[in-house]
Amino acid sequence: MLIKHIVNQGKEHYVALVEDKFYLVEGDIFGKYTVTDKQLDGQEIPFCNPSKIVALGLNYYKHAEEFGSKAAVEPLIFLKPTTSIIANGQHILLPPVAQHVEFEGEIAVVVKDTCRDVEVDQAAQHILGYTIANDVTERILQKKDGQWTRAKGFDTFCPLSGLLQTELDLSNTVLTTQVNGVEKQRGNSCEMINSPLAALSFVSKVMTLHAGDIILTGTPQGCSKIVDGDTVTVTVQNIGKLTNFVKQK
Amino acid sequence: MLIKHIVNQGKEHYVALVEDKFYLVEGDIFGKYTVTDKQLDGQEIPFCNPSKIVALGLNYYKHAEEFGSKAAVEPLIFLKPTTSIIANGQHILLPPVAQHVEFEGEIAVVVKDTCRDVEVDQAAQHILGYTIANDVTERILQKKDGQWTRAKGFDTFCPLSGLLQTELDLSNTVLTTQVNGVEKQRGNSCEMINSPLAALSFVSKVMTLHAGDIILTGTPQGCSKIVDGDTVTVTVQNIGKLTNFVKQK
Repeated sequence: MLIKHIVNQGKEHYVALVEDKFYLVEGDIFGKYTVTDKQLDGQEIPFCNPSKIVALGLNYYKHAEEFGSKAAVEPLIFLKPTTSIIANGQHILLPPVAQHVEFEGEIAVVVKDTCRDVEVDQAAQHILGYTIANDVTERILQKKDGQWTRAKGFDTFCPLSGLLQTELDLSNTVLTTQVNGVEKQRGNSCEMINSPLAALSFVSKVMTLHAGDIILTGTPQGCSKIVDGDTVTVTVQNIGKLTNFVKQK
Repeated sequence: MLIKHIVNQGKEHYVALVEDKFYLVEGDIFGKYTVTDKQLDGQEIPFCNPSKIVALGLNYYKHAEEFGSKAAVEPLIFLKPTTSIIANGQHILLPPVAQHVEFEGEIAVVVKDTCRDVEVDQAAQHILGYTIANDVTERILQKKDGQWTRAKGFDTFCPLSGLLQTELDLSNTVLTTQVNGVEKQRGNSCEMINSPLAALSFVSKVMTLHAGDIILTGTPQGCSKIVDGDTVTVTVQNIGKLTNFVKQK
């Protein structure tokens, strides 16, 4: 099922896609809920309000190659601050210190409940679904600092979709990123080194996860520079599009 | 003024030290508050509930040397997940994957209000005060991963004091760490490469800070291994002590 987080007349709601229209969801999106027959839509906002964003680095062989690094056979994790989140349609602001900013289109896991020490074969039950993210990164600071926190942590550097797909085919989901309508990045979830299930298990053995927490699953090859005035759209098959506008701060 | 965050009969309070006793604080600890004449004490809990913990790496020359790395002339920042926080008196749990865990005694800044793009000469007004932290780190994973998130992000790897000093002399504050009563680490805030004011300014130009957010200011030389059964105490002059017990998970 495809669910969208919206604001309508100042109030937050979840709505579910049935055929080609959205209908109000009642209940707890992380627990039991029902889809009503009340048609509703509104302004899309990021799917949830995570307590943390954990991300996987170098989780596709070809991206690791273009970054000039070895791929991460064991998950390589880092954190992005929640202050970096923006919604679909908002501006990615290039800070004055930034010289070379790139997009990284990604599939993101939304965690369903508080969990820790989860085994891979139990991981699926702790996943609410999948959304779309853009792990925006300043490449020069990323290499200079060694630690990726600054390069990936600027305000607005984590566009996050309001769309959630509860049934994504992890063995064959296409992800593409377009800049100004031109395709720059194309990957398939099957190319991930560590699957979202393996990622959740791994992360949960380090840190307790909470409902709504986000795990970014890494970006495929084709990352490239974005500059003031660009429009960047990450599209994930069976979820939808995440579009943001790039602006010099 | 020295303030402590406590739980008394299931309710959270802040209390202030006057002479040798604690008195109830009324009002908003991040805004206007008064110290009443009602004496109160209770179980110490971490000073606040931060939305994020930002930390400085290699901010003392001699620790950078013992780590085998260059000191960070410009602040080198990383994040610890809030799930790593534990209180004074709680257990640091060594996860099965850990082989060599070390303490890192640190002075921590508590942010006063939401702020961004703060200049150094304005930074003091965005600092509520200073507390004590232990940036517990698994050294082998830290070097293996390159990114420090896993090594420093395990549950229980951020002991955080409930004590806050609003007037700390940054030019001359002694920090020591004892393991089982034996002093292992001794440093002085004057040895920091980047001051807490410079750190807040730097971080705020990357990410928006919120009231209660924590900035760890780095550890001096003398970090060493802790093992099951150890008692580790970080003492910061004019604040107090943060004691935790080490246990194999």
